[in-house]
Amino acid sequence: MPDSYEPTERTIPTRSRERASYDRALIHSLLDETYLCHLGFVRDGAPVVLPTLYTRIDDRVYVHGSTGSRPLRMAGRPDPGLAVCLTVTHIDGLVLARSAFHHSINYRSVMIHGTARQVTDQAEKSMVLDALVDQVVRGRAQDSRPANPRELAATSVLRLELAEVSAKVRSGPPNDDPEDLELPYWTGVVPVRTIHGTPEPAPDLAPTIKVPEYLAER
Amino acid sequence: MPDSYEPTERTIPTRSRERASYDRALIHSLLDETYLCHLGFVRDGAPVVLPTLYTRIDDRVYVHGSTGSRPLRMAGRPDPGLAVCLTVTHIDGLVLARSAFHHSINYRSVMIHGTARQVTDQAEKSMVLDALVDQVVRGRAQDSRPANPRELAATSVLRLELAEVSAKVRSGPPNDDPEDLELPYWTGVVPVRTIHGTPEPAPDLAPTIKVPEYLAER
Repeated sequence: MPDSYEPTERTIPTRSRERASYDRALIHSLLDETYLCHLGFVRDGAPVVLPTLYTRIDDRVYVHGSTGSRPLRMAGRPDPGLAVCLTVTHIDGLVLARSAFHHSINYRSVMIHGTARQVTDQAEKSMVLDALVDQVVRGRAQDSRPANPRELAATSVLRLELAEVSAKVRSGPPNDDPEDLELPYWTGVVPVRTIHGTPEPAPDLAPTIKVPEYLAER
Repeated sequence: MPDSYEPTERTIPTRSRERASYDRALIHSLLDETYLCHLGFVRDGAPVVLPTLYTRIDDRVYVHGSTGSRPLRMAGRPDPGLAVCLTVTHIDGLVLARSAFHHSINYRSVMIHGTARQVTDQAEKSMVLDALVDQVVRGRAQDSRPANPRELAATSVLRLELAEVSAKVRSGPPNDDPEDLELPYWTGVVPVRTIHGTPEPAPDLAPTIKVPEYLAER
């Protein structure tokens, strides 16, 4: 595998090209760091942006949903495949410049363009359902009851190849114009982080069942 | 103003209808709690999902960008207006059920459908640029240098009416099937929160300028 994805007309930004990257390792690590994506598709000519979970396995990402959900149904008909844009965004900081104009956000995002297709192979589907659980909490899939045949049948999985994909990263302090450097405003970055708190047991959890290690370690 | 937005075919979910809400106060509060949205639009027939900042003023949301950016250019031509879907998502918890199938996420999201239009009125544009800064850090707009005419001219602002809009909320513990309640797996919710850390001054900040109160209070 080459170390980078091939840039295309869609993945070359019109502005701030220095922020774009096609590096495979960077893109994979950004995708592996979280579990929420925003999935865009077109319905009756208009865009829809759906927050949903995803997982990455090698050079593919997967999303899942009820067989009744709109994008899942649309991916299955009339020609298999649904044009999608899948975007994952990490916010790292608020960039407060001296000028309102240069205010910005430190972020790392990935945007994948492509055609999502239904996974029909049952072994692949089962593997993906495990991976979706583990994407959210590593180690959880084998510490829960796997999907039974009825649940498997009620769940659709869509596969999207990582081919037309790019990352975009902004980091570091504000970039004020030279003529603004003496202005009397505080300037810098407010770090932003997502944290996972202390697990809260369900009301009906037997008190003998303790918090598992894969949660305590987070 | 009525207390709720009117549901439409696009804003009535096909599944989990009990999670949908059209309550104006709820939708406004979800929009006011953060600053990042995912903006979907259609380009050459394919969806694009762009992470970007937004702000809400009354029953409108606004996004901005360079006059050279694709959605901003597209909104200005050939007929003014660009069909968009603007989605804002808060993640509140990881819902770990005993069965893999009932794993879920506690979230609160807002999805707005509509036509985004360029703001051409200069007073509205200036007001929105201040509001965009204050959406990220309340109080910051008046503690920074406002945009000058060159910067204003380089910035496009899009307006989107809050009309076809819905919220979706999942909260509370997992919903396991009755036959799974005796399974030996830990079950409950891992809370998720976004936190803002200690502000980091820019390397070129004069040491006499202290962290402003609107940041210290966060």
